[in-house]
Amino acid sequence: MAVETVEPAASTSTDFGPAVALSCRECGERFPLGPIFACEACFGPLEVAYEFPSGDPEGLRKRIEAGPHNIWRYAPLLPVPADVTSKPNLNPGFTKLVKADRLARELGVTGGLHIKDDSGNPTHSFKDRVVAIAVEAARNFGLTTLSCSSTGNLAGAVGAAAVRAGFRSCVFIPHDLEAGKVVMAAVYGGELVGIEGTYDDVNRFCSELIGDPIGEGWGFTNVNLRPYYGEGSKTLAYEICEQLGWRLPDNIVIPIASGSQLTKIDKGLQELVKLGLVEDKPYKIYGAQAEGCSPVSTAFKAGHDVVRPQKPNTIAKSLAIGNPADGPYVLDIARRTGGAVEDVNDEQVVAAIKLLARTEGIFAETAGGVTIGVLKKLIETGQLDPAAETVAINTGDGLKTLDAVAPTTGPTAVIRPTLDAFREAGLG
Amino acid sequence: MAVETVEPAASTSTDFGPAVALSCRECGERFPLGPIFACEACFGPLEVAYEFPSGDPEGLRKRIEAGPHNIWRYAPLLPVPADVTSKPNLNPGFTKLVKADRLARELGVTGGLHIKDDSGNPTHSFKDRVVAIAVEAARNFGLTTLSCSSTGNLAGAVGAAAVRAGFRSCVFIPHDLEAGKVVMAAVYGGELVGIEGTYDDVNRFCSELIGDPIGEGWGFTNVNLRPYYGEGSKTLAYEICEQLGWRLPDNIVIPIASGSQLTKIDKGLQELVKLGLVEDKPYKIYGAQAEGCSPVSTAFKAGHDVVRPQKPNTIAKSLAIGNPADGPYVLDIARRTGGAVEDVNDEQVVAAIKLLARTEGIFAETAGGVTIGVLKKLIETGQLDPAAETVAINTGDGLKTLDAVAPTTGPTAVIRPTLDAFREAGLG
Repeated sequence: MAVETVEPAASTSTDFGPAVALSCRECGERFPLGPIFACEACFGPLEVAYEFPSGDPEGLRKRIEAGPHNIWRYAPLLPVPADVTSKPNLNPGFTKLVKADRLARELGVTGGLHIKDDSGNPTHSFKDRVVAIAVEAARNFGLTTLSCSSTGNLAGAVGAAAVRAGFRSCVFIPHDLEAGKVVMAAVYGGELVGIEGTYDDVNRFCSELIGDPIGEGWGFTNVNLRPYYGEGSKTLAYEICEQLGWRLPDNIVIPIASGSQLTKIDKGLQELVKLGLVEDKPYKIYGAQAEGCSPVSTAFKAGHDVVRPQKPNTIAKSLAIGNPADGPYVLDIARRTGGAVEDVNDEQVVAAIKLLARTEGIFAETAGGVTIGVLKKLIETGQLDPAAETVAINTGDGLKTLDAVAPTTGPTAVIRPTLDAFREAGLG
Repeated sequence: MAVETVEPAASTSTDFGPAVALSCRECGERFPLGPIFACEACFGPLEVAYEFPSGDPEGLRKRIEAGPHNIWRYAPLLPVPADVTSKPNLNPGFTKLVKADRLARELGVTGGLHIKDDSGNPTHSFKDRVVAIAVEAARNFGLTTLSCSSTGNLAGAVGAAAVRAGFRSCVFIPHDLEAGKVVMAAVYGGELVGIEGTYDDVNRFCSELIGDPIGEGWGFTNVNLRPYYGEGSKTLAYEICEQLGWRLPDNIVIPIASGSQLTKIDKGLQELVKLGLVEDKPYKIYGAQAEGCSPVSTAFKAGHDVVRPQKPNTIAKSLAIGNPADGPYVLDIARRTGGAVEDVNDEQVVAAIKLLARTEGIFAETAGGVTIGVLKKLIETGQLDPAAETVAINTGDGLKTLDAVAPTTGPTAVIRPTLDAFREAGLG
């Protein structure tokens, strides 16, 4: 890989805070921190390994609470330098954890229900979290161009973050995306390249680019910076627990695209327990998929360890990854914690978007509809205990997927501006 | 739809915190706090009068800083009860104040430039601030239906806030709004009524409805709750000063629709000075309009005290109020502080949206484009000192006005997924 040698991990200028190495998730082999993502020994995925401060959980908790109201309050637990806040960044995170009492009543949840609403991030999806960490890794490695393959949310997040942080960007999307997503990806002024092909074709092309001299100095957030990028999702776990008053919830319902977010949330929860920041107790992790792209849910229900790829066909396009890289790990976590993986069809996704909107005033994108729809189904099928405390994650904003609800969402009535017309319409 | 009020009407005594009366802005006549908006004596607009705590600015500042990260940290300065945070609400505010160094360089600002980015609010516009205060007033008055006339942002903000706070909602819009805005207004499940007519027709109809028995128990956020509603904009002033480290900026650039936001920001700054929370010093207030709806800018340039109504024709629809109620007060404030009111054309609005996006990674709606475009023009024409510290307000989100930039914002190139194609497109 050409970019692998751009900035050796031994360089004195790099500072990854508590991160000390990359570690293979499969064989455990360790590598110096660098812009690499696959184990040289077994081709397994690499993830960031840390040496955390220990012995003073109260001091660490105080330090976090005194930090900024964004993900950098958790800098001591992330692969970023301690002075990360001094660098220009979109500063995502610390989004609202909404106590969803009205939704709880509709669903029969009595143990407490919260929505972690990541539509409040700068570009209105959780992608701002993962990109923010990738940007700091790119800075550390001396990379100059930020890139990604994307179906929308990630392209916008990378475009905006590159601008703020002072990078060039060149982002790749399938050429036939919805106009709105293209505008959002293009408006920040970086290079936006439409690829004549599917998302899989875009991905393959990006892998080719990384190996070519053209790609030298490029950081692909979700390819060669993936180990760092993924760590951004841990902040969802940290925030949920801190916002609950430094404790674990009973259940978390998380949408699955590649499955990375779910596995990193579990990693984050485990870290909080190990560091003594929350008391250990059992929790259950639930994964949510759309029926039209449900490889992990299908495997879970069949009792398989292997995830069989599918050809996606769902309105939840931000979750439409037919061959999810972290699928097997998701199965492990759901089974280990006593959770489940479930799916809902597109009609149920739309109904769930509307349910969340009319009960809590939160307008979610289709991925959020998948999560709420699955939460409902898990309760109805007895897989999730309504007397337990549950957190569901809304990963994006309804303004990004208007088409999903537009055909069935409109005015109650259209009338002339008179009181008589108002009464005649049955409104008065 | 289910009508569910959290606080039964008149079951408890009303509590408006430090607010003690409504006061006529024209003749000074005072009235008890109630759902009224015009002076019985002179028909002038009513605004909230307070008896603030005094004598301990340091204590007040500490109390605010220990408060929640939303507008309720300023509850001691708003017409809301001290226990407002115990009631369900969208909890808007405390949005990011972004140090805009790259934009500053492009514009030649050397004294420091900040963007107050209100796209971070729950429904992605500053309207969440004003609606939040109106909701608490409606609760206090035992009203059960929340309403408004709107061209988009306000309808969405009222619909979402009503759901969270437990009110019925019935919102009025011109029947021919853009599909996206209709979806955003309808998705929260309240009544949404399209009126066959212009925004002015919608407004007239709402006034008629307030006087009719049908309208009993209705709170129109921007009509009979307007005095409370308007106070929400003061929180922009409070936040800007607190986020600057409890001090006044030199200049603030603010978009003008009705002009209410600008006048209330000035009111908020004056309150901070009087309460000793910031040191007194001169500041300049600048107003921003679109050329296609520039009644206040036209009056300012002509040296008039009276604002002559215009028929709006601009892409900045959220600012398209041809007869702005607070226009004369805006003129007073711009002149008193040594500021100005300026306008830019639609082409400049689009260019400014793109300028902000490519320098700061902030995607603003057309109103934000007006503000940044006017900022640029004020500097170029010598009306705003680039060596002074300036704050410009972005009031909404680019996802709400995609049409403004869509025709001129797209991919750099569309290519086959090969390195050769990449090179041929001049990208490699």
